[in-house]
Amino acid sequence: MAVYTDVAIEELAAFLADYEVGSILAMKGIAEGVENSNYLVMTDTGSYILTLYEKRVKEDDLPFFLGLMEHLAARGVPCPTPIRDRKGKALQRLKGKAAALISFLEGVSPGVIEARHCSAVGNALAEMHLTGADFAMHRPNALGLSSWSTLAGQCRERADEVESGLADEISRELDILHECWPRDLPRGVIHADLFSDNVFFRGPRLTGLIDFYFACNDLLAYDIAVCLNAWCFTSEGRFDVIRGRALIDAYTSRRPLDDAERAALSLLARGAALRFLLTRLYDWLNPVGGAIVTPKDPGEFLRVMRYHRDHPSLEP
Amino acid sequence: MAVYTDVAIEELAAFLADYEVGSILAMKGIAEGVENSNYLVMTDTGSYILTLYEKRVKEDDLPFFLGLMEHLAARGVPCPTPIRDRKGKALQRLKGKAAALISFLEGVSPGVIEARHCSAVGNALAEMHLTGADFAMHRPNALGLSSWSTLAGQCRERADEVESGLADEISRELDILHECWPRDLPRGVIHADLFSDNVFFRGPRLTGLIDFYFACNDLLAYDIAVCLNAWCFTSEGRFDVIRGRALIDAYTSRRPLDDAERAALSLLARGAALRFLLTRLYDWLNPVGGAIVTPKDPGEFLRVMRYHRDHPSLEP
Repeated sequence: MAVYTDVAIEELAAFLADYEVGSILAMKGIAEGVENSNYLVMTDTGSYILTLYEKRVKEDDLPFFLGLMEHLAARGVPCPTPIRDRKGKALQRLKGKAAALISFLEGVSPGVIEARHCSAVGNALAEMHLTGADFAMHRPNALGLSSWSTLAGQCRERADEVESGLADEISRELDILHECWPRDLPRGVIHADLFSDNVFFRGPRLTGLIDFYFACNDLLAYDIAVCLNAWCFTSEGRFDVIRGRALIDAYTSRRPLDDAERAALSLLARGAALRFLLTRLYDWLNPVGGAIVTPKDPGEFLRVMRYHRDHPSLEP
Repeated sequence: MAVYTDVAIEELAAFLADYEVGSILAMKGIAEGVENSNYLVMTDTGSYILTLYEKRVKEDDLPFFLGLMEHLAARGVPCPTPIRDRKGKALQRLKGKAAALISFLEGVSPGVIEARHCSAVGNALAEMHLTGADFAMHRPNALGLSSWSTLAGQCRERADEVESGLADEISRELDILHECWPRDLPRGVIHADLFSDNVFFRGPRLTGLIDFYFACNDLLAYDIAVCLNAWCFTSEGRFDVIRGRALIDAYTSRRPLDDAERAALSLLARGAALRFLLTRLYDWLNPVGGAIVTPKDPGEFLRVMRYHRDHPSLEP
């Protein structure tokens, strides 16, 4: 949510000399994405995003992320696509960081989420899952179930600073999830972080899915579960059935869920809530010195997790 | 250099409903200007900057700043102009802050400053001074000579943390400046902060002067002095005669300097160096809790100030 690496205009000009994107009209550091430095670059051929990948994104993963965006965009999924230079290269280096020039998408993230947004998200998510089916590369989910125990261990000693008893509550959740986590559901490429700030709309039309830097191979229904938590809960941690149904109905109209997926949704959402609770808790307990980003409240997903525990079915 | 106040898209849409600017295509928080929150707003009629004025800008001064930009832009000076809403209003409120929608200017700030940039800046500065002559409003320079003693007093106790003897050195400078400061030079509206990040170029063409939030009435030659310090010194604090001459020659080709102004330039630049030394020193010694902006090194202008003390004429 900030610019960590300053790029001077001469450095940008030298970088863009390898591209067919015209001459620079403007360059603005923008607040977008969580962990990287992003510049909006306007040229006489259009607008682009220049991203410099900061340390939280592993360079080895970048060919997967950029390849996926290119694969999806080429097949009509509304997402940014990496621009290749004259030699056909998309992944570059700039100021000692991995960097890429990416297409700019119109649209804005909704502040107030309505059922129509959830419907559009369900639709686009299914489209992404279907289109990702023949993407050849593979990346395990670095923030999947097996990583949660590690994160929980790192937070255990101080978790109760957030709320008394939280460390034990997380332990019990982990035990249940390890015992009950479904293994045989349909798998594929998932976005894994499709929160509202990663989805653009223009009026009623969904114009973009962005920020594929958590994308990976995992259970497709887990991606729906992440979206249910991100799009269909009130700030008080109550599930909005109207929004939830809009999201699931739109998704299933494109990619029907089998009975096992449908039955697992609540547990997957309980796990997804724990995943975001844990990463937020970790960032909360370990603020980066001189951090530009304010850590997000871990309490939000604690409430969502408890909701799912208390309501083991999402069906009304 | 950051976004301090978050504006949701619905808040922006409600704000823009009073304007004739078309429908929103995109909205990005941008890193521009020092003290305010800025958003780049793209609509189907063009691009705009939405500025929310944070606490360091006095609201009472905003009619002067916005009025000046409008006055200058209407007369061909390349600077942003406030957009008026359907009722003719430019100064608004948004999220409890004073706010304004302002035209977007193409162009980028130079990273490496060359003589041609200095020439363009000299030219534009003279044009601004000439065009500002019939601007009716008046604002004293809140960061003029009389404020420097106050600032120096606030820094005195800890100034030597930056360099031993600095507090006394500043005192001696102030004594000399109070004694020798010229009073009878031509006055008018000055920018007072025309550093390279406040000037945009497209190729060789200067496309914009921005950030008029220090503009005020003061000695016109003092504005040249600020620019000489900002544009014509190496990072080691050495004056670049070629750049200096380019700036002064271009300026005087539009607005000739009289002998008294020419003779005073070095002393004015010495004072201007002290002004930026003092504000940077103050910010350095008093970092804002959770500051997003890294305080700038006060040493840069200490070196420039000493250069002027040791070289009481800028003429080669």
